[in-house]
Amino acid sequence: MNYQLILDSIYQDIQKEISTGKVATYIPELAKVSAEKFGMHLHCLDGKHYAVGDSEERFSIQSIIKVLSLVLAAKFEGMKVLERVDVEPSGDPFNSLTQLEYEQGIPRNPLINAGALVVCDILMDHLENPKTDFLAFVRELTGNESINYDEKVAASEKAFGHRNAALLNLMKSFGNIRHEVNEVLDFYFHQCALSMSCQELTQAFLLFANSGKLFPSNKKIITSSQSKRINAIMMTCGFYDEAGEFSFRVGLPGKSGVGGGIIAIHPGEYAVAVWSPPLNEKGNSQLGMLALEYLTTRTGFSIF
Amino acid sequence: MNYQLILDSIYQDIQKEISTGKVATYIPELAKVSAEKFGMHLHCLDGKHYAVGDSEERFSIQSIIKVLSLVLAAKFEGMKVLERVDVEPSGDPFNSLTQLEYEQGIPRNPLINAGALVVCDILMDHLENPKTDFLAFVRELTGNESINYDEKVAASEKAFGHRNAALLNLMKSFGNIRHEVNEVLDFYFHQCALSMSCQELTQAFLLFANSGKLFPSNKKIITSSQSKRINAIMMTCGFYDEAGEFSFRVGLPGKSGVGGGIIAIHPGEYAVAVWSPPLNEKGNSQLGMLALEYLTTRTGFSIF
Amino acid sequence: MNYQLILDSIYQDIQKEISTGKVATYIPELAKVSAEKFGMHLHCLDGKHYAVGDSEERFSIQSIIKVLSLVLAAKFEGMKVLERVDVEPSGDPFNSLTQLEYEQGIPRNPLINAGALVVCDILMDHLENPKTDFLAFVRELTGNESINYDEKVAASEKAFGHRNAALLNLMKSFGNIRHEVNEVLDFYFHQCALSMSCQELTQAFLLFANSGKLFPSNKKIITSSQSKRINAIMMTCGFYDEAGEFSFRVGLPGKSGVGGGIIAIHPGEYAVAVWSPPLNEKGNSQLGMLALEYLTTRTGFSIF
Amino acid sequence: MNYQLILDSIYQDIQKEISTGKVATYIPELAKVSAEKFGMHLHCLDGKHYAVGDSEERFSIQSIIKVLSLVLAAKFEGMKVLERVDVEPSGDPFNSLTQLEYEQGIPRNPLINAGALVVCDILMDHLENPKTDFLAFVRELTGNESINYDEKVAASEKAFGHRNAALLNLMKSFGNIRHEVNEVLDFYFHQCALSMSCQELTQAFLLFANSGKLFPSNKKIITSSQSKRINAIMMTCGFYDEAGEFSFRVGLPGKSGVGGGIIAIHPGEYAVAVWSPPLNEKGNSQLGMLALEYLTTRTGFSIF
Repeated sequence: MNYQLILDSIYQDIQKEISTGKVATYIPELAKVSAEKFGMHLHCLDGKHYAVGDSEERFSIQSIIKVLSLVLAAKFEGMKVLERVDVEPSGDPFNSLTQLEYEQGIPRNPLINAGALVVCDILMDHLENPKTDFLAFVRELTGNESINYDEKVAASEKAFGHRNAALLNLMKSFGNIRHEVNEVLDFYFHQCALSMSCQELTQAFLLFANSGKLFPSNKKIITSSQSKRINAIMMTCGFYDEAGEFSFRVGLPGKSGVGGGIIAIHPGEYAVAVWSPPLNEKGNSQLGMLALEYLTTRTGFSIF
Repeated sequence: MNYQLILDSIYQDIQKEISTGKVATYIPELAKVSAEKFGMHLHCLDGKHYAVGDSEERFSIQSIIKVLSLVLAAKFEGMKVLERVDVEPSGDPFNSLTQLEYEQGIPRNPLINAGALVVCDILMDHLENPKTDFLAFVRELTGNESINYDEKVAASEKAFGHRNAALLNLMKSFGNIRHEVNEVLDFYFHQCALSMSCQELTQAFLLFANSGKLFPSNKKIITSSQSKRINAIMMTCGFYDEAGEFSFRVGLPGKSGVGGGIIAIHPGEYAVAVWSPPLNEKGNSQLGMLALEYLTTRTGFSIF
Repeated sequence: MNYQLILDSIYQDIQKEISTGKVATYIPELAKVSAEKFGMHLHCLDGKHYAVGDSEERFSIQSIIKVLSLVLAAKFEGMKVLERVDVEPSGDPFNSLTQLEYEQGIPRNPLINAGALVVCDILMDHLENPKTDFLAFVRELTGNESINYDEKVAASEKAFGHRNAALLNLMKSFGNIRHEVNEVLDFYFHQCALSMSCQELTQAFLLFANSGKLFPSNKKIITSSQSKRINAIMMTCGFYDEAGEFSFRVGLPGKSGVGGGIIAIHPGEYAVAVWSPPLNEKGNSQLGMLALEYLTTRTGFSIF
Repeated sequence: MNYQLILDSIYQDIQKEISTGKVATYIPELAKVSAEKFGMHLHCLDGKHYAVGDSEERFSIQSIIKVLSLVLAAKFEGMKVLERVDVEPSGDPFNSLTQLEYEQGIPRNPLINAGALVVCDILMDHLENPKTDFLAFVRELTGNESINYDEKVAASEKAFGHRNAALLNLMKSFGNIRHEVNEVLDFYFHQCALSMSCQELTQAFLLFANSGKLFPSNKKIITSSQSKRINAIMMTCGFYDEAGEFSFRVGLPGKSGVGGGIIAIHPGEYAVAVWSPPLNEKGNSQLGMLALEYLTTRTGFSIF
């Protein structure tokens, strides 16, 4: 498969698109990012990789980190994690409290905000210095010591994070949060404020294409079964209220963030990351989804 | 892969399970079926097939037919069908009117009752004799002229079908149903009342493993892209409010019915059907899901 | 109290108002009514009555009839009626199925559509010829044999009544409707299609100011306690999702209809009816509510 | 009217009742109160008052204070208060976040928790020392300087108040809370922790029977119109999801608290308070409601 040719064609076609999406503005730091940015990086298990555009520029990966947070929790507790969070698609806007209340403080899945907050709470049982230790884990996955939190973004999240505080307090009222609300929030907002490039994201996420092992070292991070199961969760829950649409159009498990990034996995084949800040009305990168749809359409090759 | 050995081991282990599930009783005809029945049939694209238990006994396939109904609608109208029905998981019990009302008469996906009713309404635009013509289509897919509606089941559905009548009336109030409510209901209830065996189901559903072509004739029914997309819909929407759980535990696209049947597809590899009448509280065959989880665990092989 | 002077001042002030409301258009027959119509009639227990504008012109009283339907059901069954319908405000748009589903087929109160359909179903247990017998009852209350159903309106309701059919089917699925859906609908749509004037409405509703007895004959229709209780239901449930607003602004129990009519009661004092077709966004007569607010403000006299 | 005779008969009959209700246990301090307590005090505008049982023992008035909080807000801002909180019954359990989210941070009415938190936020714009100044206001209404916050109850509320913190954070995310979450909470929890007796409650609430003026001094606290309107709000919103039931059975505006107290008003006539700790499943005093139903039934006299 000549992936570079396909990426080049995608890049060309994306340039012609006029996005009707909007860069996230709920925190000032994100609103500053140029809507014109576009990068894509595909990393195969044969060791080859392919890139176009701003694929080496770091951006705020936001909710994409929820997957790696779940990986670390699974390392500590295995799938026991899922006693405190379900694995069903939310079928609702990504920050709704309604469902959480109806389901008595058990979030629908670990990739929505409420679920990720529970995962943070779980990690805090195991990490001595949550922020430092978690950062070390992400650096290990990417083999890159320069990855860091963007403190401005983290502070900005905190200043506008009342809804996440509401989620935490509601779950605490149901007994599903153990640590102090403000400490969980601080840890969570830092995770969301990680800066990574498309190239770095594919490096970290190749483990899901490689049965839970780092590539190319093959160091085992999680079991093959856990890797499959987290892929399955990405498939049904990775795109807020648009998981069905992404599955339908792209046909790969993946996860998006409001910074405009999307990671997707073809198990046994590759990891691919794309970045384009303008979001559609469901909160996913509009051109990012289109680029990935082009990718699986032009290769004729998805998991289905 | 020695599938027969694996199926035998599954069969043995399932015998030891004590199901806490309950046979569907909402219509008297379904309540008569023995809870002890268990059959499984796996049909590979290399032409081999494997079976255990009551795999050749016909049962009421119920909602499984919704997938083939969608196939026929896609044959007529392509993916334009999706202008009148969405592709998102429902995140709600399978017969809820709430979401339908909130989303103004557009069902969340074609595999819940409301969506399947819209698909029936679409088919009625194209079929001269809906019930006869649809039956002919299912017979063609299975290559078996003896497949038929169970009229007793259809009559039973009708007598207890007030909720489906409510769904239809609500959608008609939003302008999303064109034909007469009673005629759509009659067509729909007959579809649900089809009787097929596990062996016949895998024969019909092999087209989803075979890029939209019948197996082994390779006669094209739908395009490869349509086949992938319907697989994707099964993945995120095939199990009522348990799609995430099925994806997580089994890792294959599929569809269940309240008769206790489940069909699942490994694209490029096989179709597998299982039948065990007792349902879990989400309305899916309890032992059927377990059998399929054993299958992908023991083969070490799913789409993820 | 010089009520005529107050009614005259209200009439003058209402003429200056520019209504932003809209005449109901969900059925063609209602859409034909002039938005300019305005009538008001107040009938005191001392026998005097006062009127302005189009107070003697008949209009489609629509949901106002739900109160008299409840009266007749209470005559037959007493407050046992309330085993099949609750008495709580709906807190939701007036024709929502959501709450009905959540509360398992028991409507929130007898003055929303779902509840009134249950009341119709109850009346059909007791009336030999429901439409004829119910009409006779309304004629008795008003002492006017010329009151009749508007068959055009009834037919129009039927042609666009899919949502009410949905409500009935849903309740039937929960076992809370005994008669045939189409027969209940026909009875219900005829009730909604009654034509009455403001003058006739106050005559009929004076029984709620008069402890359940007709005025001036004092013939007992229901007990004093039943009369108080139906007043209480009007207070909390008579204005769809605007019961609080009406209670707050007007301070009297009452009931509105989408034909633009409103009846209100001052127990022990008077009944007042107002008619102005343009509806606010909650479905209540905009100027009708304003006129009644002027009335209790200018008399300085409400139940609070 | 011989009210003492009626209160005595109520007291006797209540003794025979075996309550199936349960004393509130969500905070330890409330759980300590004896389920056997019962007191009732009725205070007429002719200056006479009547009492039975534990009518002079103080208890935690909890949500009853929300009405006086609204009175003080109305003194400062008039009905402009209602720009930030609606006046519709909630039709939902009393601490639901669902509706608040759906309605974008505007609480349904000032007598549910969310609405009362907004009223606290408003008061904090006007009071230099919110807790001290508010206490002074309540003392003025009752003419009793010994009324005070129960600090143990306030602390207990705080320790279990995560759901109220969730409500506040959610409203802050919609911009409907100006002050610091923790400060609003502290003020709110103190208000809920006021201790008063039935006798003191009727003294304070007589203003709603007396057109907004203190009794017997006739010092004006709010306007007659404001008094009527707050009565109207109590009528439709004073009993969580049971306002319709209270209106139906008792026929007076009122307000309940989870401490087992209920206040009710007959405008122009009297204020009556009752206290019995066991709550029904809707969170209202079971025997308190029954006692008030007996009162209006035996006097034959309600606002309807």
